[in-house]
Amino acid sequence: MTAEINRRIVLAARPQGRPAAADFRLEEAPVPEPGPGQMLCRTIYLSLDPYMRGRMSDAPSYTKPVQVGEVMVGGTVGQVVRSNLDGFAPGDFVVGPGGWQDYAVFGEGEAQKVDPGVAPISTTLGVLGMPGQTAYVGLREIGRPSAGETLVVAAASGPVGSMVGQIAKFRGCRVVGVAGSKAKCDYVRGELGFDACLDHRAPDFEDALRAACPDGIDLYWENVGGRVFEAVLPLLNEFARVPVCGLVAWYNATELPPGPDRTPLLLRRTLVRRLTIRGFIVWDFEPGDFVNDVAEWIRDGRVRYREDIREGLENAPAALIGLLEGENFGKLLVRVAPDPTR
Amino acid sequence: MTAEINRRIVLAARPQGRPAAADFRLEEAPVPEPGPGQMLCRTIYLSLDPYMRGRMSDAPSYTKPVQVGEVMVGGTVGQVVRSNLDGFAPGDFVVGPGGWQDYAVFGEGEAQKVDPGVAPISTTLGVLGMPGQTAYVGLREIGRPSAGETLVVAAASGPVGSMVGQIAKFRGCRVVGVAGSKAKCDYVRGELGFDACLDHRAPDFEDALRAACPDGIDLYWENVGGRVFEAVLPLLNEFARVPVCGLVAWYNATELPPGPDRTPLLLRRTLVRRLTIRGFIVWDFEPGDFVNDVAEWIRDGRVRYREDIREGLENAPAALIGLLEGENFGKLLVRVAPDPTR
Repeated sequence: MTAEINRRIVLAARPQGRPAAADFRLEEAPVPEPGPGQMLCRTIYLSLDPYMRGRMSDAPSYTKPVQVGEVMVGGTVGQVVRSNLDGFAPGDFVVGPGGWQDYAVFGEGEAQKVDPGVAPISTTLGVLGMPGQTAYVGLREIGRPSAGETLVVAAASGPVGSMVGQIAKFRGCRVVGVAGSKAKCDYVRGELGFDACLDHRAPDFEDALRAACPDGIDLYWENVGGRVFEAVLPLLNEFARVPVCGLVAWYNATELPPGPDRTPLLLRRTLVRRLTIRGFIVWDFEPGDFVNDVAEWIRDGRVRYREDIREGLENAPAALIGLLEGENFGKLLVRVAPDPTR
Repeated sequence: MTAEINRRIVLAARPQGRPAAADFRLEEAPVPEPGPGQMLCRTIYLSLDPYMRGRMSDAPSYTKPVQVGEVMVGGTVGQVVRSNLDGFAPGDFVVGPGGWQDYAVFGEGEAQKVDPGVAPISTTLGVLGMPGQTAYVGLREIGRPSAGETLVVAAASGPVGSMVGQIAKFRGCRVVGVAGSKAKCDYVRGELGFDACLDHRAPDFEDALRAACPDGIDLYWENVGGRVFEAVLPLLNEFARVPVCGLVAWYNATELPPGPDRTPLLLRRTLVRRLTIRGFIVWDFEPGDFVNDVAEWIRDGRVRYREDIREGLENAPAALIGLLEGENFGKLLVRVAPDPTR
């Protein structure tokens, strides 16, 4: 099960616009030795997420960028190979920020044990992990959905959007998803139970959105920016909330969109409709009952999720490049080593 | 003291851009008779406020527009002439939405009694009225200033901005005002005690703002939009709050500013700095201890205010037109009839 070498993917160059394969480099290095109070873990799944595009750039953000030559950051679930860390033994499954590599070394508090009896271990990177927690805390703290309200969420078949919509349905909202293909929209309506789902690539998207929200929009969960945001803005009701969670439509942009400058439209709407527009990241808020609640919802079958698993660490760059253009369908994962639990 | 006629200024036409004198019309009508449960009041002061530009337009807003031919809306303080309303007697001072006219009729709950012993009656339209209350509740509910933070507020010599900055000083903030002339800035620093005040018409305004906010901006009170907003945006710190109270720089705009579209800059900043941008109007929140607190602050001399009083109802249109271009210096009022208390 252990390889002789540690394959790792480093940032080779800062992308201009859409990342290219040449912005990544696959390197080989010795498998690291865990020091005192550390453990060595074999990566099984690597999570790919839109925030990674931000880490490839040196524009100011909420955390420091990956430096050129450093291993790409990323959440991983893996299995302990050797442990000098109390409480962890070989064979244990753990989730942590292992990065894009075969092996990671974690110190105290850097990784959490995963119970494979609760749900498939891969879910600790999705519905039971950072994306699910993002939806859970963002709705609790900012979105505050209540019965009878209308929620719109884009990237609705993705791990954040699908959880946002499903929780809002539990709360009695009308839930309208936006996604990038007919297949995704069919899944969002048919499997996830959203009231409607619209293809943002359709020429009549703006009209369709208006028709799907006859009472306006009380809660717009912002995952994407771009055309969806522009279509949503005029439909926002008094006291609507806009948790700003992601802006993936703009992550690859190298220049601002053409004019006119629409900033006054946004601020004027904010004033006259008394909107709350609030950015956040998952770590801004305590998880609260997130794990217990979602584990129960999964067991009950009330929450559904979908994974899009690619094989092989070497395919991570292409998968991330595709993610930024909406090519994935469900939570995007890379299987770096076989999953012994499936 | 009573005139034979009721002069009133009606909306003659909806302005295109900057209002013109011809958009208003001075009419004469009989003095109205108060019916059962009503009282007739002689207007002493009429308040002029930036929101009135919105009421002249039929664009969607938080309340209905003034119709062409209707009396312009406005807060007034006046004196009861005849009363069929329990609790009000001739000679009482009252504040209410009397509009741009010599006389107004109020029914039950439409006007409140004013005690001229607390403060000059004109202050019920300013520091002790809607503008002061706007500052008080907006800081309490959205701005939440805390000691050591930096607050920036534009229109700093106006009734809202001056109160925002003074309250934030009580809370231990560094307070930076923005105003439209050297005289206003001198007043804001010297009389109101702000730490700095910058002229937004200065060519180096952006650099001066950056220098005045060495630790960034934690709270930007948005009164104006435009150039001030653009200069503030890159300086906003993590978890900064932006109560959106007014956008007077854009009220007369007939088209959007030239491109590029800067909306992505705003939303990206909102995400990475986890900003809260929230629109509100004064009536969204309970006043709480507003009147007691501010009356005490005035008595103590802790809160200062300045009034810009114009003489004669017929001069109200020109005064409002000037207000929208920052020509007033302090709370803008029109003296419609002599003030018997001064």
